Amino acid sequence: MFSITPSARLRPSPYYAATLAEGVNAFTTYNHMLMPTGFGNPAEELRRLMEGVSMWDVAVERQVELRGADAGRLAQILSPRDLSGCQVGQGKYVPLCNHAGTLINDPILLKLAEDRYWFSIADSNVWFWARAIAAERGLDVQVGEPDVSPLAIQGPLAEDVVAALFGDWVRSLKYFWFRETSLDGIPLVLARSGWSKQGGFELYLMDGTQGTRLWNLVRAAGRPWGIGPGYPNVVERIESGLLSYGGDTDDATNPYEVRLGRYVDLQVPDDVVGIQALRRIHREGPRRQQLGAVLDGAEPTPLLFHWHGIFRAGVRVGDLTNCVWSPRLGRNIGFALVASACVPGERVEIHKEGRVVQATLQALPFF
Amino acid sequence: MFSITPSARLRPSPYYAATLAEGVNAFTTYNHMLMPTGFGNPAEELRRLMEGVSMWDVAVERQVELRGADAGRLAQILSPRDLSGCQVGQGKYVPLCNHAGTLINDPILLKLAEDRYWFSIADSNVWFWARAIAAERGLDVQVGEPDVSPLAIQGPLAEDVVAALFGDWVRSLKYFWFRETSLDGIPLVLARSGWSKQGGFELYLMDGTQGTRLWNLVRAAGRPWGIGPGYPNVVERIESGLLSYGGDTDDATNPYEVRLGRYVDLQVPDDVVGIQALRRIHREGPRRQQLGAVLDGAEPTPLLFHWHGIFRAGVRVGDLTNCVWSPRLGRNIGFALVASACVPGERVEIHKEGRVVQATLQALPFF
Repeated sequence: MFSITPSARLRPSPYYAATLAEGVNAFTTYNHMLMPTGFGNPAEELRRLMEGVSMWDVAVERQVELRGADAGRLAQILSPRDLSGCQVGQGKYVPLCNHAGTLINDPILLKLAEDRYWFSIADSNVWFWARAIAAERGLDVQVGEPDVSPLAIQGPLAEDVVAALFGDWVRSLKYFWFRETSLDGIPLVLARSGWSKQGGFELYLMDGTQGTRLWNLVRAAGRPWGIGPGYPNVVERIESGLLSYGGDTDDATNPYEVRLGRYVDLQVPDDVVGIQALRRIHREGPRRQQLGAVLDGAEPTPLLFHWHGIFRAGVRVGDLTNCVWSPRLGRNIGFALVASACVPGERVEIHKEGRVVQATLQALPFF
Repeated sequence: MFSITPSARLRPSPYYAATLAEGVNAFTTYNHMLMPTGFGNPAEELRRLMEGVSMWDVAVERQVELRGADAGRLAQILSPRDLSGCQVGQGKYVPLCNHAGTLINDPILLKLAEDRYWFSIADSNVWFWARAIAAERGLDVQVGEPDVSPLAIQGPLAEDVVAALFGDWVRSLKYFWFRETSLDGIPLVLARSGWSKQGGFELYLMDGTQGTRLWNLVRAAGRPWGIGPGYPNVVERIESGLLSYGGDTDDATNPYEVRLGRYVDLQVPDDVVGIQALRRIHREGPRRQQLGAVLDGAEPTPLLFHWHGIFRAGVRVGDLTNCVWSPRLGRNIGFALVASACVPGERVEIHKEGRVVQATLQALPFF
């Protein structure tokens, strides 16, 4: 493991002091911010998410705010998913694409008002993108980065903790829907969402000075359920088949290649960026697909900084884009971005730093 | 110090194996890649740059390639600096701005051919930006990321090492000019450039499989001059007044605020992105300026992850955007992004994590 050198290019989050107090010892960078990725006890941090409740500093999920008369129009222009039925208070998972149909982010879109939307983004610069399109098309919309920093509460006991904090109304909140509310005077948006399949909520803190106070309020309320610190968990997300934009995608990946085709609506208007390319890709069929790979052997593998080649009968057919030891499977598993001709059940070879590892392809998710 | 967690979102460079062999122990992230920032002996790593010769893995300086009939036209549309006199083989430092005149990157532009340009970029997503503008304007140009990874050779003895490798012709290469050449069959672009004021060259490796071989060739050739590993050095760059885009700038910084006004040519065509806004800012005068700050006290300060407020007579006038111990001055120094009304020589207060430190403003650079 290597140290990360402090730099103002890599901003801490409003929860930084709170996570320091919790004993954070590892970070990743994401949207030019630091995100905690370890508190010293990975097994317990995973168990808490799978069986209890975990709280995460995910302030790196930055908001790209669209505000103004043309906010809704710009949201649709950027989104190859039909937003015409999206209501105020509703969120939608949206693959964003460039003019070539290549995936450039996969945010949650939150419709706060008819003239106000947030893209809660993955790790790429959607501000640049949205501002360029808005200005070039002469739209009446402001694209900005508001003071909004999500804190996630995830795990099977998350709902009990959030209900204790906000009331039982949260139990009937539908997936990806949200409400503007407050906690002890702290303004926030409460959404049923989060980057795990274990269930939970995200509190979109709307005042960066209140990070420590919000953290401590959640920490105290969750104590009866054994809440503790966590983070978007690489083991859980791979077992659950969740995509990491920029990790599992490259500069040519389209939504159809990574199981996001169902979020593309080919009948959206012709002025939607990338829709012509997506119609063509859909017609011709994508060249690649995303499958799971279960590696032979029972020795845990280290995390990877780069993709590993996948070969079938001596021919390179794609890449292993992540790899992690799955306690539930007792195997190393990962995502395989491979040629469309590959099929689940096939045996392949993975070339990992000079070694060759046998693996079997299967459909995603693993669980 | 914290660990950085491996992720395929953070790619290693072609020199990764070579820097591991050199004993790299710290990284930063930049353009979604890892850049070495420490080899265990910071004093010697600085001395080598100031008095000898240092070699740096700066593969994170990615290239945004513009290729096609409209490549030159797009380069000018993106650049508020007049490129009409730029020749093949010439590089130019160019502040890129958005439609509001806000700085979005400060690359070196390399003109490789009439229909082929590289922006050698700082830490922001110029691909998204350039692709959006090109596609919205219907230009005949491909925007891509070629397999190009710079290795910098910096320091007062750099020219001797590079001359030993390539021949004495390199001694007459002008600043920012370059030549396509090769070294032992490895294709590269050799430029007189680099992110220090100690002089030197950058080898733009054009074959990512040859990183270790190129590193070792340079290492061997530099041995008589005591070459060793280094990195863009935060001490030297602050002493020398070099701007770090994204570290010393925020979401509202224009070129005039950070000493880049001389790279803006207000007479460029009206279709250059941001030029109308820059003309207005120039006419009205920028609201902020970039000065140096010399802090009182002789105790070295830690590097910072975030800006510190600067106050004058109890009123906040701006921010300290970086801070480092300067061995040459025997003081902590940093850049102050402060109101235009501030003047060199003025005393200010810097609020650093609960402490108040007195400081004196001065013009940049420090050296």
